[in-house]
Amino acid sequence: LSFESRRLVLVGTGLINGSLALALKRAGAVDHVVGCARHEETLERALARGLCDSATTDPAAAVADADMIVLGTPPGAIGEVAATLGPALPAAAVVTDVGSVKAFVVDRVSEVLPRPERFVGGHPVAGTEHSGPDAAFASLFEHRRCILTPTAGTDPTAVARVRAMWELVGSSVDEMTPEHHDRVLAVTSHLPHLIAYTIVGTVADLEEQARAEVFKYAAGGFTDFTRIAASDPVMWRDVFLNNRAATLEMLGRFTEDLIALQRAIRWGQGDVLEDLFTRTRAIRRGVVEAGQAYVRQPEDPLASKP
Amino acid sequence: LSFESRRLVLVGTGLINGSLALALKRAGAVDHVVGCARHEETLERALARGLCDSATTDPAAAVADADMIVLGTPPGAIGEVAATLGPALPAAAVVTDVGSVKAFVVDRVSEVLPRPERFVGGHPVAGTEHSGPDAAFASLFEHRRCILTPTAGTDPTAVARVRAMWELVGSSVDEMTPEHHDRVLAVTSHLPHLIAYTIVGTVADLEEQARAEVFKYAAGGFTDFTRIAASDPVMWRDVFLNNRAATLEMLGRFTEDLIALQRAIRWGQGDVLEDLFTRTRAIRRGVVEAGQAYVRQPEDPLASKP
Repeated sequence: LSFESRRLVLVGTGLINGSLALALKRAGAVDHVVGCARHEETLERALARGLCDSATTDPAAAVADADMIVLGTPPGAIGEVAATLGPALPAAAVVTDVGSVKAFVVDRVSEVLPRPERFVGGHPVAGTEHSGPDAAFASLFEHRRCILTPTAGTDPTAVARVRAMWELVGSSVDEMTPEHHDRVLAVTSHLPHLIAYTIVGTVADLEEQARAEVFKYAAGGFTDFTRIAASDPVMWRDVFLNNRAATLEMLGRFTEDLIALQRAIRWGQGDVLEDLFTRTRAIRRGVVEAGQAYVRQPEDPLASKP
Repeated sequence: LSFESRRLVLVGTGLINGSLALALKRAGAVDHVVGCARHEETLERALARGLCDSATTDPAAAVADADMIVLGTPPGAIGEVAATLGPALPAAAVVTDVGSVKAFVVDRVSEVLPRPERFVGGHPVAGTEHSGPDAAFASLFEHRRCILTPTAGTDPTAVARVRAMWELVGSSVDEMTPEHHDRVLAVTSHLPHLIAYTIVGTVADLEEQARAEVFKYAAGGFTDFTRIAASDPVMWRDVFLNNRAATLEMLGRFTEDLIALQRAIRWGQGDVLEDLFTRTRAIRRGVVEAGQAYVRQPEDPLASKP
């Protein structure tokens, strides 16, 4: 095996970290997994689902004697947890994370760890709208991409180890700077989530009778937005607060485009609408060709057939 | 069988009409299906796929001797086609349509048909992002809803016949006024499509290098929007032009909410974000409970597990 761990620590035992543990265990790549979370109930679920072999609420106790630590807490809490476990880290251990924002996380964690050169920022671009230990499943990362964001000071052997771990669970690994990651993900992930949260919020504010009808006829397009807008609230709060500049920049572009479209509808400019709707079809083809459109069952009424 | 047709005419042989024909044929409910479209190539595909048994580009010739006519052209073209076939309609024939806007279509068609009381506005709330004869499949309407919009003057026997047709292919049928339909669908379908078209258009305008990266990392949320934004351009142009008031009203609410969220991000109001993101999760539950969230495979990384 290209990646092995004698003692792997999950700080946070939710969808991402839990799925990683299941995938590594299935591959026979880990001897012992330690689960660490703030709440006992979460750890009980993680143990029951076999995401970890032992569990503790104390991050410093968790990392003793470990060779690989994966930080999977919401970005806003990650600095504090890294500061807590830092002094207890074995010198040879590699630390990585799975957060959706990188510049903020890499800065914060590097500041507080005793050996920041052994920390590699990471972001597996995979997920579902479900969170917590019960949402984890072993195939989450297959045919997905994982981005690593080492900096000039990062130890190349640490990067190689984290890369091998993600490749083992089925992902293609790319490297880029934390800042570049945040700009790319602002477009592909943060803006789409923000838009989905907004439209579902707009519906949540409708009077009750109208809302009941929205539920009935949601298959007309609304359903897809509700899935995205059901994602973890705390995690996404931290994403927007900590990738503020790139999110606001993309949101500005989006709003301009939306106002232009609104104007075209108001003034009956059918050619403007048709032209845009034709261009967006080409983008779908690009996504499908890049292998990023999940192919569902052909008989699925919402199926995508590339 | 509760619905039977000796000679059914599809005016337009795309995704919706084609799927309806396949479903009715599978049920053994139609003796002969006539396909009618503007382009010979479309009719050749429709014949090859077995959507129809005979074909013509002339709407008046198509409807001769028919007992059921389904208008499946984009809303903007439906008045003209109804005017062309009107004089040739047998007195006992029932006419319906499958358009996504109803007030405009019902007004326009009722104006030009010789017996408007035999016309029943209809909208099967089902579809995929694919269009044309090749996109049709027989199970498209199963477990879906279909809305009929009869008016005070509509013949109840015509309504009953159209209802029976949609029930036979697996849909639940509701009745409401054309105006009410347009307000409900503005929320559940037209606004979501407009938003998806806009965000995908915003990405289409990025410089080429950035766009290539968006394709690679689209699984972070963007993918779902590209699917919706790949829907038929002419059809959707006509929807927005012909449900203008309700679309602009919902768009206004959405824009206000988006600006408020933008402000919360700029000022770091984490509690505002977390509160909204928690409320939107509840809406997802409402959609799932209403049976409108398609349940994909559990091992699908984008799966929804209600």
